[in-house]
Amino acid sequence: MSAPATPVSAAPVSTAPVSTDDVARVAALATRARVASRRLALLSRADKDAALRALADALDAATDEVVAANAEDIERGRRGGMDEGLVDRLTLTAERLAAVAGALRDIAALPDPVGEVVRGSTLANGLQIRQVRVPMGVVGMVYEARPNVTVDAAGLALKSGNAVILRGGSAAESTNRALVGTMRGALEAQGLPADAIGLLDGGRGAVRALLTARGLVDLIIPRGGAGLIQTVVTESTVPVIETGVGNCHVYVDAAADLDKALAIAVNAKTHRPSVCNAAETLLVHASLRETFLPRVLAALSEAGVVLHTDAAAGGVAQSAGTPHVPATAEDWDTEYLALEMAVAVVPDLDAALEHIHAHTSGHTEAIVTEDRAAARRFTTEVDAAAVMVNASTRFTDGGEFGFGAEIGISTQKLHARGPMALPELTTTKWIVEGDGQIR
Amino acid sequence: MSAPATPVSAAPVSTAPVSTDDVARVAALATRARVASRRLALLSRADKDAALRALADALDAATDEVVAANAEDIERGRRGGMDEGLVDRLTLTAERLAAVAGALRDIAALPDPVGEVVRGSTLANGLQIRQVRVPMGVVGMVYEARPNVTVDAAGLALKSGNAVILRGGSAAESTNRALVGTMRGALEAQGLPADAIGLLDGGRGAVRALLTARGLVDLIIPRGGAGLIQTVVTESTVPVIETGVGNCHVYVDAAADLDKALAIAVNAKTHRPSVCNAAETLLVHASLRETFLPRVLAALSEAGVVLHTDAAAGGVAQSAGTPHVPATAEDWDTEYLALEMAVAVVPDLDAALEHIHAHTSGHTEAIVTEDRAAARRFTTEVDAAAVMVNASTRFTDGGEFGFGAEIGISTQKLHARGPMALPELTTTKWIVEGDGQIR
Repeated sequence: MSAPATPVSAAPVSTAPVSTDDVARVAALATRARVASRRLALLSRADKDAALRALADALDAATDEVVAANAEDIERGRRGGMDEGLVDRLTLTAERLAAVAGALRDIAALPDPVGEVVRGSTLANGLQIRQVRVPMGVVGMVYEARPNVTVDAAGLALKSGNAVILRGGSAAESTNRALVGTMRGALEAQGLPADAIGLLDGGRGAVRALLTARGLVDLIIPRGGAGLIQTVVTESTVPVIETGVGNCHVYVDAAADLDKALAIAVNAKTHRPSVCNAAETLLVHASLRETFLPRVLAALSEAGVVLHTDAAAGGVAQSAGTPHVPATAEDWDTEYLALEMAVAVVPDLDAALEHIHAHTSGHTEAIVTEDRAAARRFTTEVDAAAVMVNASTRFTDGGEFGFGAEIGISTQKLHARGPMALPELTTTKWIVEGDGQIR
Repeated sequence: MSAPATPVSAAPVSTAPVSTDDVARVAALATRARVASRRLALLSRADKDAALRALADALDAATDEVVAANAEDIERGRRGGMDEGLVDRLTLTAERLAAVAGALRDIAALPDPVGEVVRGSTLANGLQIRQVRVPMGVVGMVYEARPNVTVDAAGLALKSGNAVILRGGSAAESTNRALVGTMRGALEAQGLPADAIGLLDGGRGAVRALLTARGLVDLIIPRGGAGLIQTVVTESTVPVIETGVGNCHVYVDAAADLDKALAIAVNAKTHRPSVCNAAETLLVHASLRETFLPRVLAALSEAGVVLHTDAAAGGVAQSAGTPHVPATAEDWDTEYLALEMAVAVVPDLDAALEHIHAHTSGHTEAIVTEDRAAARRFTTEVDAAAVMVNASTRFTDGGEFGFGAEIGISTQKLHARGPMALPELTTTKWIVEGDGQIR
């Protein structure tokens, strides 16, 4: 499931100077993680699965302690005026913690990506070459999402043979410390290095030290709001996978099945508005102005959606008495993450493609149409991680795609694009076996 | 074939300030490239192959013009005191240009990576999902290698449906201008956008503007010496694939076939010392000190290799009267790219693995052994793009691996690791087809 993009704390990254102390502390943490990662890379699947189950059992056993730590965070948050939506996302009840621990057992049941032979051949000179999946090494996670990310990320890293350095939001500090402490203890009890799961505390300078620990950290994955992600992407010299910002469009074509279109538009917007695969803009073909447009505007409005309309859609809403506000230029680039939607009427498929090309964040774009040629053009010409035909944008998700887990949704083109799971946390190595070949 | 890592010009990148003029010029160039890339992404394989052959024909027809432009570069280089090795690498004779044009015809004969279905499935809810290879978009190449890179990169980008922005070394400026002008003309004559192949000129600030054109350029690939690559990696906010620095080791195990070991050590060092897959350090198991070590030192020395020896290897060389110099701490991290080699005696496989772990650049590492357990440990525990058993390090190469082409050798873990060819110039897109599915 994709993480809510709304932060549970202020962005933990800034242009704060990096002290030599922060650099030294991150270097020490990353070096210990690197040493641990060399052990992890050699573990069998059976060993890793046993460790994951032990982590889950340890979290279950530590329920009281974790819930108490979480209560501290909640209390501090409420004192600081945190809104109740964020409080809810931050809250870890015994029931929620049991689900978090259960997710580790689910990860144990997934296939091990390490060791998979991606391709291979025997060369003319007799060399046998094969490209094999191996762990990345040390992965840094910088996030401001719910505390379940702490456990999910640790579990996915462990399963893929990576050490992980976790940097959660300051709002979840006590909770994360309790979760990581419990998991580290469980690793040690299994005879595994506790440093496979590291927690980076300290101020914003510590985060910047992590982002510039090139050579010590192999990959940084940011998860959170657009501000956090942009800061990480801009400041990091460690390779980054950009995740999550989704300015997703639903385009209803002239040849759409209008019942499907209505269901998809409403679902894509309202099913879970706070996540990155929710739709933000609805584009409707001009031929549907009289028929479909009033219907979908009414349905969205009834579902509580604030409609930001262009002139044509605004006119239709006006005639029908549907509440709406005029869209500004910014609306077309806004990821509302809320019950708000921009609506425009487009003269044809070309105009829809141009609008999407101008405003897409490269996450998920959908067309509703029964016209094979329109669907083919849309899927070919739209440049995004996922392109849907007659389906809700909400399906861009590792769980929905059958990956069994998700560490984020990449909106960049390098390494991974779309939902990322275990294979995306690995790299490859060429193994070349010969009997004395030279050039 | 891997590019010589020795620059043909001073590194074109520095900490020079970026002028607003450079930023505007790069933005305009990249925007035109982006528009062109949208055309390229829709071309059929047949169209792209025809275009590649037209480019080759145009280069053949422009031989006199290109050779004349190259003569200007050579003359300027010689006036500036360029050494004759660099002059040779920079020189483009009619014969060499014919080979460069021929490489475009070879690329036309390769399979098209675009459209390949990487994986896919039908979900429980009936959604049909598939992950399909698509072009990256706009690829920037920053290089200081021979002018053939200009044509190779343009050809590989075109075949993979990408627009390319080329930034070659200033020493090859006239040559590159003639090559790119010819290719752009050939594209236009085919009814294709000339801006699919762009040349970035201007000073070092122009390069920095390219490196920070995030959102306009999808990927930067640097090719050249360690200084160039480090600068690009550090300064770029556009995703980068780090290439080419190879501090490659050959470890001769206790259980090595000594004839194979001798041939591999000499070949790995001397076959083409200036390239990244040449070996730089020889590690010899202590049990071979009396038998193999004197032989290999003599053979390397006879082949003209300057030996930088640790105390134990130095003692053996001394007794045998083989010329040698004591290795300093820096030698173990030096990519000589010349007929020089560091030599150390290690007590066992563990020590060899530790040495490699401490000094590897993650390019290629080789073991020579007949012991299955040693080979298995080496291939499992060494963390590098390619790990060889009983084969020369020189085989880490797109051509040798059967890729038919190579745009560089990645030494990073993200996206591509090892020789990169056409598939590595693509990303993927998920296409999801349904009949009205919602969540």
